[in-house]
Amino acid sequence: MLKGRSLIDPMDLSKEELEEIFKLASDIMSCPEEFSKVCDGKLLATLFYEPSTRTRFSFEAAMMRLGGKVIGFSEPNSSSVSKGECLADTIRTVGCYSDIIAIRHPKEGSAKVASIYSEVPVINAGDGGHQHPTQTLTDLLTIKELKGTFNNMTIGICGDLKFGRTVHSLLKAMSRYDNNRYILISPSELKIPDYIREEVLNKNNIEFIEVETLENSMEQLDILYMTRVQKERFFNEAEYLRLRDSYILDKEKLKKAKKDLMIMHPLPRVNEIDYSIDEDERACYFKQAKFGMYARMALIAKLLGVR
Amino acid sequence: MLKGRSLIDPMDLSKEELEEIFKLASDIMSCPEEFSKVCDGKLLATLFYEPSTRTRFSFEAAMMRLGGKVIGFSEPNSSSVSKGECLADTIRTVGCYSDIIAIRHPKEGSAKVASIYSEVPVINAGDGGHQHPTQTLTDLLTIKELKGTFNNMTIGICGDLKFGRTVHSLLKAMSRYDNNRYILISPSELKIPDYIREEVLNKNNIEFIEVETLENSMEQLDILYMTRVQKERFFNEAEYLRLRDSYILDKEKLKKAKKDLMIMHPLPRVNEIDYSIDEDERACYFKQAKFGMYARMALIAKLLGVR
Amino acid sequence: MLKGRSLIDPMDLSKEELEEIFKLASDIMSCPEEFSKVCDGKLLATLFYEPSTRTRFSFEAAMMRLGGKVIGFSEPNSSSVSKGECLADTIRTVGCYSDIIAIRHPKEGSAKVASIYSEVPVINAGDGGHQHPTQTLTDLLTIKELKGTFNNMTIGICGDLKFGRTVHSLLKAMSRYDNNRYILISPSELKIPDYIREEVLNKNNIEFIEVETLENSMEQLDILYMTRVQKERFFNEAEYLRLRDSYILDKEKLKKAKKDLMIMHPLPRVNEIDYSIDEDERACYFKQAKFGMYARMALIAKLLGVR
Repeated sequence: MLKGRSLIDPMDLSKEELEEIFKLASDIMSCPEEFSKVCDGKLLATLFYEPSTRTRFSFEAAMMRLGGKVIGFSEPNSSSVSKGECLADTIRTVGCYSDIIAIRHPKEGSAKVASIYSEVPVINAGDGGHQHPTQTLTDLLTIKELKGTFNNMTIGICGDLKFGRTVHSLLKAMSRYDNNRYILISPSELKIPDYIREEVLNKNNIEFIEVETLENSMEQLDILYMTRVQKERFFNEAEYLRLRDSYILDKEKLKKAKKDLMIMHPLPRVNEIDYSIDEDERACYFKQAKFGMYARMALIAKLLGVR
Repeated sequence: MLKGRSLIDPMDLSKEELEEIFKLASDIMSCPEEFSKVCDGKLLATLFYEPSTRTRFSFEAAMMRLGGKVIGFSEPNSSSVSKGECLADTIRTVGCYSDIIAIRHPKEGSAKVASIYSEVPVINAGDGGHQHPTQTLTDLLTIKELKGTFNNMTIGICGDLKFGRTVHSLLKAMSRYDNNRYILISPSELKIPDYIREEVLNKNNIEFIEVETLENSMEQLDILYMTRVQKERFFNEAEYLRLRDSYILDKEKLKKAKKDLMIMHPLPRVNEIDYSIDEDERACYFKQAKFGMYARMALIAKLLGVR
Repeated sequence: MLKGRSLIDPMDLSKEELEEIFKLASDIMSCPEEFSKVCDGKLLATLFYEPSTRTRFSFEAAMMRLGGKVIGFSEPNSSSVSKGECLADTIRTVGCYSDIIAIRHPKEGSAKVASIYSEVPVINAGDGGHQHPTQTLTDLLTIKELKGTFNNMTIGICGDLKFGRTVHSLLKAMSRYDNNRYILISPSELKIPDYIREEVLNKNNIEFIEVETLENSMEQLDILYMTRVQKERFFNEAEYLRLRDSYILDKEKLKKAKKDLMIMHPLPRVNEIDYSIDEDERACYFKQAKFGMYARMALIAKLLGVR
């Protein structure tokens, strides 16, 4: 039963519950009109203590396309925080006005705190470098819809694997499926953290290799998940200049790729995917953004218990 | 007739008109579905020249739960004010787009000015330290719903009674009912202003005493209305340190209270009510926030003439 | 066919297409209820990279009065721009969530760029000093509704004719109609640019004179379009002090005007129209603001193809 629950960590959802959400998302995509009024009279509150237009828009559009309405703020300035109120009080008050809350907060654990005090379901829309479960839902739904499976694939993940929370969540979520192989592509400074290597990969006997460049692995990949590599993450400028091109996907590197490679990116991108790739039918990142809205529609409908 | 009118000062409403609003609020609470479309096609404009998430959310949720929609801004930066436009012009323009306006402005009297130039009803959502009539409506509806009467009670009001506008408005509004007795609890620097003592209390032969600490009066109270005491209001630090604990409600102080005491607070609180009190069934401040939304629903419906 | 198209430059629309939009606006004004659900289920995204409350409200009210909903931001701070994303990516992502986009951007040409990358219609809501086509639609609809014609009039345009984009767009749009005569009233520093004089007026054999003061031409005018004259546009303070009163419309100057003169202003005004004029029935600028909403309703309905 998802009705009335909160979603804080992507792992809060069992495989069966994920299936339920993806099934509903799929139904909504095939016939959106049928779902365009299911949240009629319901209110979503979007509390963004940190700006994120993309995520906020995705939540708000999701709620509106279900027939619901939205109240919210997009920056902390305009919130009551400046009056010294604690998060628990804000959440309890907002719960008086709304039926479900999406919260984004720079401080790790704040979404969890919010869910403890809330009388309505809380969705974590990102808490610091910690969790961003609807991005994981988005990624999984994209794979499900475009690959039709979560098993038997070679998945490349490229870029900043140390600080990128979407990558950690994706690895955790995918670790529950069978027979996937990972090629983890990053500069040595930005490899996946030890706890992911141990607790997620080794513990589940998942096959993976860690490499430094994108080129050599390309031909093996079924999915390539790109993320940003920020200059300031490198130890020194020389290292950055030596490596940066290895983490930029361009037409040249794509030549060796499979015909049905699926290129993903959580967006926004800066320059790590060349714009010339956008026209390639293997580029799936804008589709992914669209799936993100449908994933949130399904999630909201499930947590509100209207479907 | 409330239709088409503005609400600037809580005393703009007669006792009969208040009754009409509370009756409607009560009807809405018993059967919200019946009212969920009465403002279909109507637009509320929320002009917040000063941020107040709580009040803005309450207005917007109220309008949306009546089936209406909302345009607005939550901070002056994004308004046309920066281009030098006067308030009268802004109001007349916004009145071209919307059916009713809620305005919050740091300058006293600005809501009144707005109502003079507006072709649609204007609701004062707070003008400086002056008036905040929907907070008074909220307080009264809470008392009405939870006590069932506006008469024959001993009401404690605690905290900053000098600058707290909600307290002044509540005293004025309650002065029209019978046989209530007030215990005004504040440091001497923050006693009620002379004009309230003379014009509101003495003039209406209302019984009241002014005391410095919360403890001694507790057992007599039917209602305890708490407000914030800000450190910077005190004349000196020593005085603040000596007195501050007297204005914090905790479990110890609550021991002597009546079983049916009703603890109110306009929120946000900082530390003047200990969090351990929240679980006590006498704590009514979150219910009060919820009543605030219903009070605004009833008010909007009445001013728009849809009920 | 307007369905699916973008509107970047006012001249993107043929005279016939304008007629179609004005006809629909007129129908909406006579029976708004009939159109109050035509955009049910549709989403407008308002991307305001530069604040403009008035324009944003007009778009959002327009969409809501058609039964649609709105997502958006009103200031660049809260957008993804701060993460270095290019406009093309923002537009493609927002197009995943919404059915139509209104964009205001300080950089000239940005609305054009947006329309190239967008999969949904884009409306230019102002790009720097360049174009603001819905203001032109507003101006034309106001003239159409209140004068009943676009021909055979003497039209005074007063104020800053050099930098005022609304004036340039209006002159271009009106140049397609017959037998109008223009009196262009401005200080010599703020005359219309040469390219407007040559490409728009002379090329189309349009009769016009350029004068420095408002008084002498007043009695000839059928329409007087006022705009702001900003002090900082003048070469020197002495010149400003000498001339400023010539560009302020007051009761005295209005004495010689025709009984059916129509006074327009794109708003916001600062002091260029005296407040005493507001009561005069020839003052049409607040009506103009209202027509602005209806013009946008008709435009949105046409571009979405729902009417």
